[in-house]
Amino acid sequence: MEKSSISIQLTSSKKPKPQSDELAFGRVFTDHMFVMDYSVEENWHSPRIVPYQAIAMEPAAMVYHYGQTVFEGLKAYLTKEGKVLLFRPEKNMERLNKSNDRLCIPRVDEEFVLEALKQLITVDKEWIPEKEGTSLYIRPFIISTESYLGVAPSKTYKLIIILSPVGSYYKEGIAPVKIAVESEFVRAVAGGTGTAKTAGNYASSLKAQEVAEASGFSQVLWLDGLEKKYIEEVGSMNIFFKINGEIITPALNGSILEGVTRNSVLQLLKHWGLPVTERKISVEEIAEAHKEGKLEEAFGTGTAAVISPVGELIWKNESLVINNGETGPISKKLYSTITSIQRGDQSDEFGWTTEVSTVEKEKVN
Amino acid sequence: MEKSSISIQLTSSKKPKPQSDELAFGRVFTDHMFVMDYSVEENWHSPRIVPYQAIAMEPAAMVYHYGQTVFEGLKAYLTKEGKVLLFRPEKNMERLNKSNDRLCIPRVDEEFVLEALKQLITVDKEWIPEKEGTSLYIRPFIISTESYLGVAPSKTYKLIIILSPVGSYYKEGIAPVKIAVESEFVRAVAGGTGTAKTAGNYASSLKAQEVAEASGFSQVLWLDGLEKKYIEEVGSMNIFFKINGEIITPALNGSILEGVTRNSVLQLLKHWGLPVTERKISVEEIAEAHKEGKLEEAFGTGTAAVISPVGELIWKNESLVINNGETGPISKKLYSTITSIQRGDQSDEFGWTTEVSTVEKEKVN
Repeated sequence: MEKSSISIQLTSSKKPKPQSDELAFGRVFTDHMFVMDYSVEENWHSPRIVPYQAIAMEPAAMVYHYGQTVFEGLKAYLTKEGKVLLFRPEKNMERLNKSNDRLCIPRVDEEFVLEALKQLITVDKEWIPEKEGTSLYIRPFIISTESYLGVAPSKTYKLIIILSPVGSYYKEGIAPVKIAVESEFVRAVAGGTGTAKTAGNYASSLKAQEVAEASGFSQVLWLDGLEKKYIEEVGSMNIFFKINGEIITPALNGSILEGVTRNSVLQLLKHWGLPVTERKISVEEIAEAHKEGKLEEAFGTGTAAVISPVGELIWKNESLVINNGETGPISKKLYSTITSIQRGDQSDEFGWTTEVSTVEKEKVN
Repeated sequence: MEKSSISIQLTSSKKPKPQSDELAFGRVFTDHMFVMDYSVEENWHSPRIVPYQAIAMEPAAMVYHYGQTVFEGLKAYLTKEGKVLLFRPEKNMERLNKSNDRLCIPRVDEEFVLEALKQLITVDKEWIPEKEGTSLYIRPFIISTESYLGVAPSKTYKLIIILSPVGSYYKEGIAPVKIAVESEFVRAVAGGTGTAKTAGNYASSLKAQEVAEASGFSQVLWLDGLEKKYIEEVGSMNIFFKINGEIITPALNGSILEGVTRNSVLQLLKHWGLPVTERKISVEEIAEAHKEGKLEEAFGTGTAAVISPVGELIWKNESLVINNGETGPISKKLYSTITSIQRGDQSDEFGWTTEVSTVEKEKVN
């Protein structure tokens, strides 16, 4: 599809924009959205930017019953010079198609969807918040829309992109969290859908999160579904540990999501000449390292928080305090480097950012 | 909630009803549906029967992103005397709440939802097909409706019941199918959502089914996610094997769905004095039994097909033909007994059926 084929219908009633310091995550949406349909006969067609609006589907639409859906999450940042930057969006497009493959959803033209996303951001550019730590969260997702109760891949789909101005993940600066090692519930297993960004993985995670929160923990540390021994992810982030100078993250094993931030962190650490390893790592090894005073840092990585330091791990009723419950130097350096690149405050030597368009600089509180 | 609290808004334009012999599965829906909303403040409220119609939700509605949803499937049957029978509907209501617990969805009042379901069927009773093997498929489902992109349980939900007249699963009589043992993809694992009737389990199963169909198989036989050794389910049905006179089905292990038909089959077999065991059973044991000529029958059980005989299993490129590829005597007897009870043709000594209302008998082709 050609870039020019995206039709644009602008809203006649713009919504009021929230103040930068009132922004939460994913509650407020911009004035427009992008929609594109799929049918077997017409493939992906009718790409259009329309006012943000409810979508009406029959109650028998397959997405309500069999969860055949995928999504992505990325952010647009406003630089001090008023430029709009995307951070490695081609990685998200690539992963969207990987998820599509696993979920039997027809592939999309990655370049075209990226172009659509840029056009949508341009239309709603006034919605990008300016304050440090804020950004425009971008949610592309695909839902199965066929009205049919048979268990089979849908014959029709909608790809939708919505935008949400989001506040700083850390209201009071980057801060460590308390994490419970999950020993009952399982997020994913090899041969399942763990590597895909699909609804079911998140639905499955809610119960463990609910139990953890009720006990005063922020998130759960997921162990592998087979032996419940090896570390997989933390909440919906990837995880890294620094043990005796070496930085270790679980290797991609068929049930771990291939995070864009995870990949960026790996590249940065290597670039800085730090010893970094992707391998299987057991919770026993972590506890052992802690006992020996060698567990120096732990942090999650993801689009929302960028870097989320872990201050305390709870495993079998034992508390493993990490770095005195404070944010470690590697976590700090990674956070400041990545966010600086994302916001255009630091030179982008990896070529990670993509400029969208120029936004007239407005004074935002 | 009281029975009388269900408001009823009838359609002003009834749809044409399909012919009994043209019915497929889950493509045609009746004139009305039941809807009920949940909010934290009002709990489940506003139960209503309304014309079958599209539902409109914001694109940020949680069901589209995180798959927090559950469903049930059961059938209503028209007897020769014009009575409408439900088959063990209380088991479905009970399981709906079990699924709700796993998915962090607020529980429903089982008796009330069953009453709602009966009222809906009564309103659309003319839609129940009469021909042998046909029935009215009932799909209650709950979707998370909050407009929020945070990964957390939704604060609002909709419970919807839709009805679909369905044809005979076996157009030409009960017939055995060819099944591939799945060795790559996994449906569920203990600690996951396998015991819940939730969207993600079905989304996850599509890929294996697609691969199996492309190779000429009807369904896949799922092995356990841990060792890929023990048998779990077949397609979206439970499975039974008859080996050397003993009937064996995988024990409920935390990843297998507790099927209503499975439970009914177990009760019937015991009632008939046949040796029946719920235990772990490996695919190696099945192959060994086949080699020794002791694998006498295999069949799936589920609401759609009732009994689905397995005529051939493919494992590691080897073909295991069962009972000469023909429907075995136990499969036949179970199918005829259960369908006879469901249709009121045989005395219901287990108290499995519930009468809904009396439908004026119409001559249907």
